Amino acid sequence: MDYQAVLEEIEKEIKPLLNEGKVASYIPALANVDDNKFAMSIMMFDGTSYNIGDTDFKFSIQSISKLFTFTLALNYYGKKLYDRVGHEPSGDPFNSLVQLEYENGIPRNPFINAGAIVTADTLVSIYKDNTFKTILNFIKEVCNDDSININEEIFQSELEHGFRNFALINMIRSYNNIHNKIDDVIQTYFKQCSIMMNTQQLSRAVLFLANHGINPLTNEEIISSSKAKRINSVMLTCGHYDASGDFAYKVGLPGKSGVGGGIVAVVPQKMAICVYSPKLNNYGNSLVGTKALELFTTKTNLSIF
Amino acid sequence: MDYQAVLEEIEKEIKPLLNEGKVASYIPALANVDDNKFAMSIMMFDGTSYNIGDTDFKFSIQSISKLFTFTLALNYYGKKLYDRVGHEPSGDPFNSLVQLEYENGIPRNPFINAGAIVTADTLVSIYKDNTFKTILNFIKEVCNDDSININEEIFQSELEHGFRNFALINMIRSYNNIHNKIDDVIQTYFKQCSIMMNTQQLSRAVLFLANHGINPLTNEEIISSSKAKRINSVMLTCGHYDASGDFAYKVGLPGKSGVGGGIVAVVPQKMAICVYSPKLNNYGNSLVGTKALELFTTKTNLSIF
Amino acid sequence: MDYQAVLEEIEKEIKPLLNEGKVASYIPALANVDDNKFAMSIMMFDGTSYNIGDTDFKFSIQSISKLFTFTLALNYYGKKLYDRVGHEPSGDPFNSLVQLEYENGIPRNPFINAGAIVTADTLVSIYKDNTFKTILNFIKEVCNDDSININEEIFQSELEHGFRNFALINMIRSYNNIHNKIDDVIQTYFKQCSIMMNTQQLSRAVLFLANHGINPLTNEEIISSSKAKRINSVMLTCGHYDASGDFAYKVGLPGKSGVGGGIVAVVPQKMAICVYSPKLNNYGNSLVGTKALELFTTKTNLSIF
Amino acid sequence: MDYQAVLEEIEKEIKPLLNEGKVASYIPALANVDDNKFAMSIMMFDGTSYNIGDTDFKFSIQSISKLFTFTLALNYYGKKLYDRVGHEPSGDPFNSLVQLEYENGIPRNPFINAGAIVTADTLVSIYKDNTFKTILNFIKEVCNDDSININEEIFQSELEHGFRNFALINMIRSYNNIHNKIDDVIQTYFKQCSIMMNTQQLSRAVLFLANHGINPLTNEEIISSSKAKRINSVMLTCGHYDASGDFAYKVGLPGKSGVGGGIVAVVPQKMAICVYSPKLNNYGNSLVGTKALELFTTKTNLSIF
Repeated sequence: MDYQAVLEEIEKEIKPLLNEGKVASYIPALANVDDNKFAMSIMMFDGTSYNIGDTDFKFSIQSISKLFTFTLALNYYGKKLYDRVGHEPSGDPFNSLVQLEYENGIPRNPFINAGAIVTADTLVSIYKDNTFKTILNFIKEVCNDDSININEEIFQSELEHGFRNFALINMIRSYNNIHNKIDDVIQTYFKQCSIMMNTQQLSRAVLFLANHGINPLTNEEIISSSKAKRINSVMLTCGHYDASGDFAYKVGLPGKSGVGGGIVAVVPQKMAICVYSPKLNNYGNSLVGTKALELFTTKTNLSIF
Repeated sequence: MDYQAVLEEIEKEIKPLLNEGKVASYIPALANVDDNKFAMSIMMFDGTSYNIGDTDFKFSIQSISKLFTFTLALNYYGKKLYDRVGHEPSGDPFNSLVQLEYENGIPRNPFINAGAIVTADTLVSIYKDNTFKTILNFIKEVCNDDSININEEIFQSELEHGFRNFALINMIRSYNNIHNKIDDVIQTYFKQCSIMMNTQQLSRAVLFLANHGINPLTNEEIISSSKAKRINSVMLTCGHYDASGDFAYKVGLPGKSGVGGGIVAVVPQKMAICVYSPKLNNYGNSLVGTKALELFTTKTNLSIF
Repeated sequence: MDYQAVLEEIEKEIKPLLNEGKVASYIPALANVDDNKFAMSIMMFDGTSYNIGDTDFKFSIQSISKLFTFTLALNYYGKKLYDRVGHEPSGDPFNSLVQLEYENGIPRNPFINAGAIVTADTLVSIYKDNTFKTILNFIKEVCNDDSININEEIFQSELEHGFRNFALINMIRSYNNIHNKIDDVIQTYFKQCSIMMNTQQLSRAVLFLANHGINPLTNEEIISSSKAKRINSVMLTCGHYDASGDFAYKVGLPGKSGVGGGIVAVVPQKMAICVYSPKLNNYGNSLVGTKALELFTTKTNLSIF
Repeated sequence: MDYQAVLEEIEKEIKPLLNEGKVASYIPALANVDDNKFAMSIMMFDGTSYNIGDTDFKFSIQSISKLFTFTLALNYYGKKLYDRVGHEPSGDPFNSLVQLEYENGIPRNPFINAGAIVTADTLVSIYKDNTFKTILNFIKEVCNDDSININEEIFQSELEHGFRNFALINMIRSYNNIHNKIDDVIQTYFKQCSIMMNTQQLSRAVLFLANHGINPLTNEEIISSSKAKRINSVMLTCGHYDASGDFAYKVGLPGKSGVGGGIVAVVPQKMAICVYSPKLNNYGNSLVGTKALELFTTKTNLSIF
């Protein structure tokens, strides 16, 4: 199939939507983004890639980082991780404290903020002071790119304005489900959100999830086959907050979005995709990004269903 | 692959679990079941089938019926159906009224009781007095078996003890999301739950969902390809109440369970499966049935992820 | 103190508010009311009464009836009643199902609909087919007026449109906290809501609550002193749904409102008051009635605080 | 009436209950208390006092401090205060985040932790760095006792273990209902909770609330008559978290409890009472203290109802 042609069709069809949605504004550093950008990259197992739009443009990966920390934590802890964070859809907005309260501080899944914070805490328990460095090195490794780093301004901005995340971590701590210093954990979490990547890098970085845990470009096993499948299933059921059902319904691929405007998606045993467009729909997911992926599976018939 | 051998292995491995779990007891007619039964059937596109256990034994399909009414309603209404019932996981026990209240009478998805009741109502709007007959005929057709019918005792029992379902329908009605007489709708719903089928029949009945909407045994298009995929996605994200994430995580197939002890699952583009064992886990899904399907995808590597 | 003069002042001061608020419209029979009416009656222990406005005009007492059924049930069951219905404020709109679900079918207090329905059920357990007759006779007795009766049109209207109440009773039944036939209980409840009384009658009917359980006009003990005080405390903390705190704050008297536009209030050891005006504030309480009572305690310094 | 004799009767009757309940243990400094203590003080308008038990023993006043900060804030802001904190019962455990989330960061009343934290914030807006000093001076003044101070160990303990309160303040801040630095506000709040007083001091300190805002011992107006009544009404409807209805029901007096084991209560136009016993019931209120006050109003007939 001529994927380049598919990307070109998609670029044309999403154009009228570029004015819709709203850039995330909860921190000033995110609000000041060029909001008409669009980029989409496909990475195949043999290293072939297809790109459209500004695929060199780096944006903060935000919640897409949860995919990498979940991988690290699941790899280390295996089933024990479920005692600390579940894998059920949350059925509530992404930063809801309600469910957490009714469920005694065990977040529903690693892709809501509460769950990602607990996941970060499990990593701090292993890697101590080197936790963020370990996360960053892991991303550099799966993406084979040493140049990746954080945006210090975004990190500081998250730190200054992240009141709901401070509320979450303190509440989870009150249920004894945070084992390290609150400041160490929350700084790790905010730093991972501030990592800057472009769609080319991200599509390469998640390729191992499409290939049963093995990076097809290096033949290195990143995670076991069965764990890779489980990560994909959590992406499908929980990857888009309270629009996860809708994403599965319309796109039909495991995916994970970030409030910075990026979405990664995985076609099992075939390829990885990343799309970027900063304006968000009502659920906090890239509006054009979601549409582009829906067009992609419609045109290619690559839905897993 | 030798699927018969796989089924035989599974039968051995699940044996120690046959004592675990509890038969549904909310109505007397369900509680009086032989609780050590196990049956599993696979149906291929060419008509080949593989069976183990008591695959002739008929049980009430209960919530599996929601799959057939959702198919009928989606086929007729298309996108308009979403104004009445959503397609997001509910993140709450299957009969919760809470979420319904916060979301103004629009059930989260067609597989929780509230959503299935609204779906039944949309069918009563079309088929009036013939609604249940239409549903039953549809099931007879997709399964090519005229002998299927309801168990009158179970139907009466549901009617007499279904207080939560009466609460649900009255509440939805108070939000004007029930358009027909409460008694007509609830009787339709209770009747569809009381339909008796065995695992052979059920595996044949859902085969069209594995084959993009076309019954491969008759080549008849039951529903469009894109709608069939969407039904599969809703099964994956919402098919097992508050254990949907766990089922996707462990089994990795679209599936739908019923409190009668049956579970159907679909391997897209390959086959349909039905498993039966009446004892339920804490989430109201067949305990042994869930395990059997997990063993199946582990052994066959047929997870969609 | 010249209470007649106080009433006259109040009538003047509330005039500009008579256009505000909205008549209850959930049933047609209530919506068709003359919405500029105002009436207020005071009844003293020696039989003296003070009246202003259309104090002969009869309106449906609605939730004020809960006061009489709670009195009957508490008199019969004593502390045992608390196993079936609590006495804590609900902190939620008056017909909320949420709290009921989290608290396993035990309504928070006898003045929210769920609690009044359970109270009605406890009376049906005692008085069987004569339950409504017993309630009506009790009201006739405390008010010394044989002419009181229900409005059949309002009763039928409640029956036809009371979907939320049907939802409530079915849900409570599912927790086994309804012991009689749903139809018998709900009809009793709807009938008690449809009783027609004017402000003179209602002020006389609740006088025993101001006088430690003894009707001062007849010297008859209706209920023990300690129970009378407890009924007053429940009126104060729970009498106005989710505006109970505000009513206590502004008026400072135990009171109970009905969606028909009436409010009764009790000045312990002094008098009983009833005010009527059919337009409701956002909390479902008579807007002008609440204001009139606030003016009353400000002018007379009769707040219990 | 011989109040000393009443206190002596009460002391005898509560003795068998001194073993019931549990001392607060959420911070170590509270857990290490002598848990069999009992003390009760009555203060009359003419300065006469009645005492029983160890009425010189100082305990941390904890949530009773909310009464004093609410007085200060209501005095300064008047009705404007309601934009920031309501006056409705919460119907939920005292530190619930759920209700806060559904109500956009406006706490239900000044006596739940969230509401007291917002109240502290409104005081920091006025008194800046002198806020805690102003609160402490106010308490010294109404109690005419310069020796009152905080327990530094309890303060530090609250600071180190108050994760839920940190969660609350961050969440409220995310709704922009905290206007000052989080650290300044929370330290003020934890300090006010750590103030040490005995039952004699506390009964004197709340006497102005029994006397329509005027300290009868000094004739000084602390707050207006109408505001004093309103504070009493909030005590009655909200003073005991989710047992406020029960306290009103059984005791029938405006009161405010603290997790340190103290309860103050007010008999309007007559006296103020303070009781202390550190073991708490399931609702976090002094078990023996609640019973002692119930016995008091039963014996003296001083319930406001």
